[in-house]
Amino acid sequence: MSQSLGVVTPELISFEKPLQLERGQTLPRYDLMIETYGSLNADKSNAVLVCHALSGDHHAAGYHDSESNKPGWWNHYIGPGKCIDTDRFFVVSLNNLGGCSGSTGPLSINPETGKAYGPAFPEVTVLDWVHAQARLADHLGIHKFAAIVGGSLGGMQALQWSITYPDRLESAAIIAAAPRLTAQNIAFNEVARQAIIRDPNFFGGNYTDHDVIPASGVGLARMVGHITYLSDISMGEKFGRNLPREDRDAEGVNFAVEQYLRYQGKQFSGRFDANTYILMTRALDYFDPTLNESTALSQVLSETRCKFLILSFTTDWRFSPSRSEEIVDALIQAGKAVSYARLESAHGHDAFLIPDATYERLFKAFMSRVHADLGGGVVISHSYRIPDWIDNNARVLDLGCGDGRLLAQLVETHAIHALGLELEPDKIATCLDLGLSVIQQDLNRGLSNFNDQQFDTVIMTQTLQAIRRPDLALSEMLRVGREAIVTFPNFAYIRNRIQLGLAGHMPVNPQLPNPWYDTPNIHLSTFRDFEELCQTLGIQILDKDTSNLSGNRTWLGTIWPNLFGEVAVYRLTKEP
Amino acid sequence: MSQSLGVVTPELISFEKPLQLERGQTLPRYDLMIETYGSLNADKSNAVLVCHALSGDHHAAGYHDSESNKPGWWNHYIGPGKCIDTDRFFVVSLNNLGGCSGSTGPLSINPETGKAYGPAFPEVTVLDWVHAQARLADHLGIHKFAAIVGGSLGGMQALQWSITYPDRLESAAIIAAAPRLTAQNIAFNEVARQAIIRDPNFFGGNYTDHDVIPASGVGLARMVGHITYLSDISMGEKFGRNLPREDRDAEGVNFAVEQYLRYQGKQFSGRFDANTYILMTRALDYFDPTLNESTALSQVLSETRCKFLILSFTTDWRFSPSRSEEIVDALIQAGKAVSYARLESAHGHDAFLIPDATYERLFKAFMSRVHADLGGGVVISHSYRIPDWIDNNARVLDLGCGDGRLLAQLVETHAIHALGLELEPDKIATCLDLGLSVIQQDLNRGLSNFNDQQFDTVIMTQTLQAIRRPDLALSEMLRVGREAIVTFPNFAYIRNRIQLGLAGHMPVNPQLPNPWYDTPNIHLSTFRDFEELCQTLGIQILDKDTSNLSGNRTWLGTIWPNLFGEVAVYRLTKEP
Repeated sequence: MSQSLGVVTPELISFEKPLQLERGQTLPRYDLMIETYGSLNADKSNAVLVCHALSGDHHAAGYHDSESNKPGWWNHYIGPGKCIDTDRFFVVSLNNLGGCSGSTGPLSINPETGKAYGPAFPEVTVLDWVHAQARLADHLGIHKFAAIVGGSLGGMQALQWSITYPDRLESAAIIAAAPRLTAQNIAFNEVARQAIIRDPNFFGGNYTDHDVIPASGVGLARMVGHITYLSDISMGEKFGRNLPREDRDAEGVNFAVEQYLRYQGKQFSGRFDANTYILMTRALDYFDPTLNESTALSQVLSETRCKFLILSFTTDWRFSPSRSEEIVDALIQAGKAVSYARLESAHGHDAFLIPDATYERLFKAFMSRVHADLGGGVVISHSYRIPDWIDNNARVLDLGCGDGRLLAQLVETHAIHALGLELEPDKIATCLDLGLSVIQQDLNRGLSNFNDQQFDTVIMTQTLQAIRRPDLALSEMLRVGREAIVTFPNFAYIRNRIQLGLAGHMPVNPQLPNPWYDTPNIHLSTFRDFEELCQTLGIQILDKDTSNLSGNRTWLGTIWPNLFGEVAVYRLTKEP
Repeated sequence: MSQSLGVVTPELISFEKPLQLERGQTLPRYDLMIETYGSLNADKSNAVLVCHALSGDHHAAGYHDSESNKPGWWNHYIGPGKCIDTDRFFVVSLNNLGGCSGSTGPLSINPETGKAYGPAFPEVTVLDWVHAQARLADHLGIHKFAAIVGGSLGGMQALQWSITYPDRLESAAIIAAAPRLTAQNIAFNEVARQAIIRDPNFFGGNYTDHDVIPASGVGLARMVGHITYLSDISMGEKFGRNLPREDRDAEGVNFAVEQYLRYQGKQFSGRFDANTYILMTRALDYFDPTLNESTALSQVLSETRCKFLILSFTTDWRFSPSRSEEIVDALIQAGKAVSYARLESAHGHDAFLIPDATYERLFKAFMSRVHADLGGGVVISHSYRIPDWIDNNARVLDLGCGDGRLLAQLVETHAIHALGLELEPDKIATCLDLGLSVIQQDLNRGLSNFNDQQFDTVIMTQTLQAIRRPDLALSEMLRVGREAIVTFPNFAYIRNRIQLGLAGHMPVNPQLPNPWYDTPNIHLSTFRDFEELCQTLGIQILDKDTSNLSGNRTWLGTIWPNLFGEVAVYRLTKEP
């Protein structure tokens, strides 16, 4: 049952030990404003850290008073029975260092001067936040988080955690994030900063000395930021070319979208500190675990030990799916347990905050596996001889893994290290339910994101005939894997020969159930064709077996496989 | 031979007759600063009007002095032997009304007050510009332009011309434009305006009274605009996360991209008037030939009479290809002569200004056809009986028209109204060479952009087997066309039967030259299969013919077509 957390109360935690910061300065002491939801269990293993994005804070879920109708920023995803289930997890959320919602930041008094820090507040980075969060965990008696999760800049903190404290988290959910900012990302941040700095009320950041705030500049910064959080589609749906609302200030305004942005900017400038905004955008700009590509991201991630869930949204153009895929590819290269999906959404970057059934389904499946290890007893029967050809503890990649039945069986019987590729979000969620790592990937895109010989066995069942270039697929399978196992239907099966050869029809039968004009099978072949292709490609056939559609061998199929075998399963390797 | 125009000289033209403006005000008199290149021919039929974008002006090509190394903004595309060939055309370029490069605008003296207009300069629209340009044409003695061309806001002027003065242009080239702005487009313009308006040196637009300019605000506006002209890719290639250049001001700058944007902003604020910037962005916002969708765009375009070329660029996210395709679809709906290509480019919106071989090839082919009508004598032989089945003056759509050979032949022999769909830019250019209208479109996307019964005949030659859903394609062909003509290879041809039926191989032979794993033919069928599908779909076979690959009939193929026919051609219609 999903329900709200009700009223939640923030708490201020003080840290009196100095914190050495990444960019050189030291913070003599600091406070962190936090909220917690749910209960820490006896062995303190059920804690989840939630990290906020640029303008977020510690108030992630529930309400600050019973009259409020404004819940925390991730209320839809945190609470009893929700994705981050507070009946199961102890959730920790904080306002980051340098923030303006109670944690030590530019508005705080500098103990050395007795005045507000203002622009003198030291530059902080994502790494500094992670260190401060680790100290908070120590304070709460949490050695290891069950999960660290966040969207956007929050996802970057989860990523940094996996690198800096690999032993202190079981899993990381990194949503709508990027491994580092592009020039375009930095450019938008710079426009926002310049809008603030050029406001005559900014006074070089010392506006509190003059009892003013650079509201105009902060409002303008928020306007440009806001455009990048939405998509062209969602803005079109929300505003289109509508005229302004008459019940709101509309001076000099021609379109509703202008009015909305001005309103958003004005609201924001009243609640958010200008120096914090500059500091937060700088932290975004600086974030770069590769240190300007001095080390490959896969190398940086090689020491991580947690399970990863990476999610992106199709219309997010601030951190587009391809940026999330950089993280996914690096984790694959590093041989880590990673699951990934690219979610359909109209909501742009903001999608990570917005209710969506598929997003919930995947996020919840992952968090459920975080909570409960895979319970034993999942025994799934699977025909063909595939299990005989897999070694114990083998690294296995399943191309088009479907609902993960075969991989889950092999995990159970052979303790394999499994990774699946699949396109359908529903099937990906089922795989996550089974505790499998799975990447949303179109096989027609190839396997270039995988290393040479990264796997012991690469499996493709009943998919070869549906992909664009079966020959390239086979070569790629044996580049990334030592062995390959392939199954496909035999077009030279006797029934097909009769239908085409004698009746002049394209075959339609239980083996090939679709008519020629509406079939996913775009490259049919016969066993003989397949074996000749293997020869051409320098592929050795280690073993093969044919069966009928139910997975049973027939005596005719054993004697004349190309004539009487309906389905073939081949075990292949590269010729020495 | 392509070469530069050398030194060109602007000229100021005065218009003393008042101009009634779209939004209500009247301009008592005005000047337009213009440049012309090439010579007007005796019958004054070779004039091309070039329209500029937001921050452009009359200086489109050549140099203003012999020492200059800064040519006009479209120098690459205008000049002797270039796309807009000044050896053939008389090119007219002007600074639009409200501009700040010599034409009457906010910096000009208001004759009624004796002071600069400033913020009191009347709001002007794209329609006002078109009227002013029409008066300029009258002044130059040009009744009808051979072409009106422009990119971005310039393309919108060309589009408006086609609507407002349908008899005064032979053709329009509309590049990287949109039929109207989206909410996101308006939002970015509003941020730019607010940056200027919030500059304390703006003084409500009366900055000249205070002898200052709002340089900070204009610079910031240009910074945000500049980001939207580039692509994430091009910014990444140009700047990445590079550090600032040391030979330039780098105060408070952390990345090269920040330094670049500030520099661009500063340069721009020195040369461009703030009130003009606001006025130009407002003209963009207001542009909407559909009057807020009170009329469908196809309806608005129904009275146009020119030939259209529409071009878009893949990474343009200011006016993305889908925006250009709105114009293309509306022109198709209205039954107009339109050609379209979506050009691959990394350069975002700016791509329309940048040299690119494919862009040049297509633009030049179109402009060459503008200059010379299709010379007679293009007689192309084409096998099969297709020409026998086409009426004179028929409206014919060719799906996958290739180099346009068949359509050009039918134009020649049957005076058809031809439109081709094709994916390959090279083939599109060849079609443009032949004077055909052609749309870059993937057949797998369907034909939903065409009206019911928009054509007399829809042709598809040797493509049916390569598309994803041949059944849907056939239904769609007979939705948009009264008749359809289809050709495809027969999989039941005797040689195929022998190869599969007796040898157990997928066929490879002159009819089906590719191996099974690397063939574009993803849905093979036999004549018998095809005819049964027609029956299922309620399609009547009016006529059919079979031939061998060379297009010749054989006696065996006539008697037993499904066994001995290699290629079939069918004439189809919907059953009554």
